[in-house]
Amino acid sequence: MILKKWLVGDPLKTAQASHERLSKTLALSIFSSNAISSVAYATEEILLVLILAGTAAVSWSIPVSFAILFLTAVLTISYRQIIYEYPGGGGAYVVARVNFGEIPALVAAGALMIDYILTVAVSVAAGIAALTSALPALFPHREALGLLAILFIVVMNLRGVRESGKFFAVPTYFAIGALGLMVLIGTFKSFFNPGAIPTAAPVGSQESVDGVTLFLILRAFAAGCSAVTGMEVISNGVKAFRQPESKNAATTMVWMSVILAFLFMGISWMAYHYGILAKEDETVVSQLARLTFGTGAIYYTIQIGTMLLLILAANSAFAGFPHLSSILARDGFMPHQMASFGDRLVFSNGILILGFLACLLLVLFHGDTHALIPLYAIGVFVSFTLSQAGMVKSWLVKKGEHWRKKLVVNGIGAVTTGVATAIIALTKFVQGAWIVFLLVALLILMFRSIRSHYKAVAEQVSLSRDTRPPRPRRNLVVIPIGGVNRAVISAVDYARSRGGDIRAVLVDVEKEETALVEIQWAQWGCGIPLIVLPSPYRSILRSLLDYIEEQRQKDPDCWITVVVPEILPARWWQNILHNQRALLLKASLLFKDRVVLTDVPFHLAR
Amino acid sequence: MILKKWLVGDPLKTAQASHERLSKTLALSIFSSNAISSVAYATEEILLVLILAGTAAVSWSIPVSFAILFLTAVLTISYRQIIYEYPGGGGAYVVARVNFGEIPALVAAGALMIDYILTVAVSVAAGIAALTSALPALFPHREALGLLAILFIVVMNLRGVRESGKFFAVPTYFAIGALGLMVLIGTFKSFFNPGAIPTAAPVGSQESVDGVTLFLILRAFAAGCSAVTGMEVISNGVKAFRQPESKNAATTMVWMSVILAFLFMGISWMAYHYGILAKEDETVVSQLARLTFGTGAIYYTIQIGTMLLLILAANSAFAGFPHLSSILARDGFMPHQMASFGDRLVFSNGILILGFLACLLLVLFHGDTHALIPLYAIGVFVSFTLSQAGMVKSWLVKKGEHWRKKLVVNGIGAVTTGVATAIIALTKFVQGAWIVFLLVALLILMFRSIRSHYKAVAEQVSLSRDTRPPRPRRNLVVIPIGGVNRAVISAVDYARSRGGDIRAVLVDVEKEETALVEIQWAQWGCGIPLIVLPSPYRSILRSLLDYIEEQRQKDPDCWITVVVPEILPARWWQNILHNQRALLLKASLLFKDRVVLTDVPFHLAR
Repeated sequence: MILKKWLVGDPLKTAQASHERLSKTLALSIFSSNAISSVAYATEEILLVLILAGTAAVSWSIPVSFAILFLTAVLTISYRQIIYEYPGGGGAYVVARVNFGEIPALVAAGALMIDYILTVAVSVAAGIAALTSALPALFPHREALGLLAILFIVVMNLRGVRESGKFFAVPTYFAIGALGLMVLIGTFKSFFNPGAIPTAAPVGSQESVDGVTLFLILRAFAAGCSAVTGMEVISNGVKAFRQPESKNAATTMVWMSVILAFLFMGISWMAYHYGILAKEDETVVSQLARLTFGTGAIYYTIQIGTMLLLILAANSAFAGFPHLSSILARDGFMPHQMASFGDRLVFSNGILILGFLACLLLVLFHGDTHALIPLYAIGVFVSFTLSQAGMVKSWLVKKGEHWRKKLVVNGIGAVTTGVATAIIALTKFVQGAWIVFLLVALLILMFRSIRSHYKAVAEQVSLSRDTRPPRPRRNLVVIPIGGVNRAVISAVDYARSRGGDIRAVLVDVEKEETALVEIQWAQWGCGIPLIVLPSPYRSILRSLLDYIEEQRQKDPDCWITVVVPEILPARWWQNILHNQRALLLKASLLFKDRVVLTDVPFHLAR
Repeated sequence: MILKKWLVGDPLKTAQASHERLSKTLALSIFSSNAISSVAYATEEILLVLILAGTAAVSWSIPVSFAILFLTAVLTISYRQIIYEYPGGGGAYVVARVNFGEIPALVAAGALMIDYILTVAVSVAAGIAALTSALPALFPHREALGLLAILFIVVMNLRGVRESGKFFAVPTYFAIGALGLMVLIGTFKSFFNPGAIPTAAPVGSQESVDGVTLFLILRAFAAGCSAVTGMEVISNGVKAFRQPESKNAATTMVWMSVILAFLFMGISWMAYHYGILAKEDETVVSQLARLTFGTGAIYYTIQIGTMLLLILAANSAFAGFPHLSSILARDGFMPHQMASFGDRLVFSNGILILGFLACLLLVLFHGDTHALIPLYAIGVFVSFTLSQAGMVKSWLVKKGEHWRKKLVVNGIGAVTTGVATAIIALTKFVQGAWIVFLLVALLILMFRSIRSHYKAVAEQVSLSRDTRPPRPRRNLVVIPIGGVNRAVISAVDYARSRGGDIRAVLVDVEKEETALVEIQWAQWGCGIPLIVLPSPYRSILRSLLDYIEEQRQKDPDCWITVVVPEILPARWWQNILHNQRALLLKASLLFKDRVVLTDVPFHLAR
C-alpha cells in the first residue's frame, strides 16, 4: 500500500475531475507526440522499400512524401469536422456505431485497439533505436531497454493525467525544438551545399536495380503512411480539453499537423539531398543529425530529444486505449471492470493491460522497429476510413447547415483514406497485415461473446420476470475441523452466535489422532455434536465433500453454511504453510447451490 | 477431473495399502535402477579426467575402478546392517537424527534432497545421451527430449507405486540383460583379440601429457564415485518390501551390488582393452556396443536398453524424494501438506516438486551429463558418511549381540565413505560442489524456519495455556450491493435466515443509479435498511472498507459478517467478467480481526 502510494500518489476526489482538464499546450504535448514522433521512422521506412530497386529509385522518396503530405492535409480538415460533430469524443468507434451499426463499429474498435498496442511497441522500439544510434554499445540490450521504457510509462500513467501532462510537456517541446532546429539548419545548409556527397550511402546496392515498379512505389507509400498514424488521437479525447472543448481540440489538431508536415517534409528532403540510406544500426535521423552538426553536443541533444519524443509518444496510446476500453465496457463489449475509474481518476485496468500487451509484442519482435512496421498503420487506416465514411452518411441523412460543403470534405477524406487503406492492405498483406485482420476478427468475436454473456446474465438475475423466488428456510452449519485449537474454538463461537443446527466434522485419517480429538472436543466443544467421517481413500477433501453433498441432497429446503476456521499468519510467505486444504475445500464448494462459505479468521501475532 | 482420472487412475482405498507392498523382483527393478544405471556414465567420467594427462594415463582407469569396486563392497555390507537395524526405513536422515541429533540429520536430509533432484537430472541427461549416440540427428534436441522424459516419469509416478513397478520392471530387466550380454560377449572376445587396435581413440591428445599426478587420480576416483550413487535407496524404502521386510531388502541389496559391480568392471575393462576414449557426441557404452556387435540390431537394442534403464533410474528418486519429504513434514521441517497421501497412496506433492526442480536443473545445464556430474555424488557421500558414523555411535552406545563385529563393519564403512567424501569435496569443490554446500545450508535454514514457525503457531493456537478466550456477543451483518437482482436477494434471504443486525450497503458512485437502486430496494429489500455511502474517491472498495473498519472499531464486542452475493457463471472463462470487486474486497477483509466473510452463491444456468 505504501509502495502504491509512493508510485501512484494520493487518490483524487471526484470533485477534482473537472480541474483535470487540459490546456491546449498540455494537450498538444500529450495527444500529438504520437503523430509527430512518426517522423523519426517514416522517411526511413520509405527509403527501405525504395532501395530494393537500387539507389536510383531513392529519388522517388520525394513524390511519395508529397503524397503523404496531401494525406495529412485531408485528414486534418476531415477530423476537424468530426471534432465539432462529436464533442463527446470517441473517434471511429462512436462515429461508426452511430452511422453504420454494430459490426462496423466493432471493426473500428478492434482495429484501433490493435493499433494502440502497436503504437506503444513501435514508438518504444524506435526510441531505443535513436538511443542505440548514438550509443552503439547499447545495441545488444535494446529489448531490455524497451521493456524498461514501457514500465516507466505505465507507472507514470497510473499517477494520473495532469501530472503526466506536466511530466511529458517539457520533453515533448524540447524534442520538437531540437528536431525543428535540425530541419531548419539542415535545409538551409543544403541550399549552399548543392548535391552533397552521399557519404553515408553504402556502395554495392547500385547493381540490384529491378526497375521501379508501380507496386514498389505503392509499397513505399504504404510504409510512409506510418507518418500519419496517431492523427486521430485528438478526436478520441475531445472531452479532456478545457472549454470550449471542440474549438480547443480543433486548433490543437491544426498545430499538430503543421508541425508534423514541416518535420516530415524537411527530413525527407534532407535525406534525399544528402543521399542518406537506411542502416541497420543507425537511424536516418541520426545520420542527418551527424551530417548537419557533427558528432557533438548538438547531435546528442537531438538524439535524446528524438528518443524522449518517441518514448513519450507511446504515452498517447495510454490515454486512448483505456478510454476506448471504457466506452466499450459501458456498451457491454468489454468486462465491466474496464469501465471503473481507479483511485487516480484514470482507467488503471486499461493502462495495465496495454502495458502488458506492448511488452509482449516487443519481446516477440525482439524490439525491432522494422519488424513491427508491416503490422502497423493498417488498423489506423481502417478506422480512418470508417470514420470518414460514417460522416459522409451522417451528412447525407441529417443534412443541416453547410452540409454539402461538409459532405465534400468528408467525401474526399473517405475516398483518400479508403484508397490508402486498400494500398496498405494489398502491399503489406503477406508481410504481416494478415495478422491484424485475423486479430480484429478475433477481437470482434470476443466483444460479441462478452456482450451476449452479460445479456444472458441480466436476464437470469432480473427480478421483474416473476415474483420472489422461493427460499430455503432451515440452516445447517458444518464446521470442518482437523484438531482442537483456538482457531477452531473461534469458529465455533462464531457459529453459536449465529444459531442454526451446528455440527463439527472430523475426517478419521488416523485412529489415535481421532480419539485424541474426541476427548478434547468433549472439553471444548460446547456441546456441539462432533461427527467423525470415515476416510476410505485417505482423502480428507473427498470425505468432506461427500458429506456436504449428502446433507445438501437430504434437505432441499436448507442452507448449508460451511464455517472454515482460517489461521492467518503474520507474514505473507507463511501462507504456504497454512490453509492449503481450506483453499481446496472452498474452491470445490463454490460450485454447489445453497452451500454458503464462511471464513472465520484467526490472526497470528508472529 | 476426467483428465486426472484418465492420467492417474481411480483412487485406492487405504485397505489396499498393504497389498501395494513390493516383491523382491519388483523392488529390485524400482530401487536398483538408480545404482545400476550409473554404469552408463561412471567409466566415461573416469576416462574424461584421466585423458587430461594424455592417453597413457588412461591405463589408470583399471586401479581406479578397483577402488570403486571396493567401495561398492563396503557399502553393501554396511547398508545390510542398517536395513536390519532400521526396518522402518529412513536412511541417513533417520540414522543421523537418532544418533547425532538435529543438525547432522538436517545436513543428511538436505544433501539427500539435492541428490534426488540431481539423480533425476543426471539420469535423464545420460539416457538422452544414449539415444542421441545412436541417432545423432536428435543431438540438438536433447534438452527438449529430457524434459519430455521427466514429464512422462512424473505422470507414471502419480499413477501409484505398484503400477509403476510393473511398468518399470520389464524395461529394467531388459536393459540389465542387454548390457550384461554386451559385457559377457565383449569380455569374452577381448581374450581372443588381445590388444585390439584402439580405433575409436582420437589421435593428438598424446602430446599433452602433464604427468599423472595424485590429484588427478583422486579426481578420477571422485568422478567414478558417481557409480555407487543410488545404493542407499533400498535402505530408505524397506517398508515398501513384502514381509519379512528387512530380509527381503537385504537380499535385494546384494543382488543389486553384484549386478552393478559386474557391469561396471566389465565396461571399464573393455574400455581399457579397446582403448576407448570419451567423445562429445557418443557415449563410451555406445562405442563399446558398436565395437562388439557392429552398428546393427543388437547395437540399437543395447542403446535403447541403456536409455530405458537411465530414464527409469530417475524413477527411483521419485520413490525416495516424496518419502523423505513426508518424514521431514511429520517432524515439522517441511510444510504439513507434504505429509498427505494423495488419492493414489503416493505423495503427490513431493512427486510434482521433484519433477519441477529436475526440469529446472536440466534447462539450466542444457541437458548435458558432464556439466551436471561435478554437482553429483557429494550429497550422497555426505549422507553415506553420516549413516555409517551414526551406526558406529549406535553400536558403541547400545552394544547388543555381536556388536563388536558390527562396529568394525560400520567403522570401515564410515572411514571409507568419509575419505571418499573428503576426496570428492576437495577435487570437485571449484567445479560445482560449492553450489551443493551452499544449497544444503539454505535448505537447513528453510527446514529450521518452517519448524520454528509451526512451533510458534502451535503455541498461539494452543488451548491449554489459559481458559476459554472471551468472545464477541453481538452480530452485525453487512451486505454490500451494487444493484438489486436475484443474486442480491438470495444473499438477503440467507442473511435473514441467520438473524443479527442486517444492513445492505451501497456506494454512491452515480447519483441517478443510486436513486434507482433505492426505489428497487423499497420493493425488494424486505425492510432491511439500505445505507448509502458517499464515495469521494470514486473507489467503491475504499468506501466499503472504511465503513466496515468504522463499524468494527465502534463495537469491539461484535462479529461483523460481510455477506457477499456472488454470481457464479456456467463456464470458467466467464469468471473474468464477474466478481473482480468481490475478490478484492475479500482479499482486503481477510486481514481484519472479527470480520467474517460469507459467500452466498448464485449459479447461472448459461
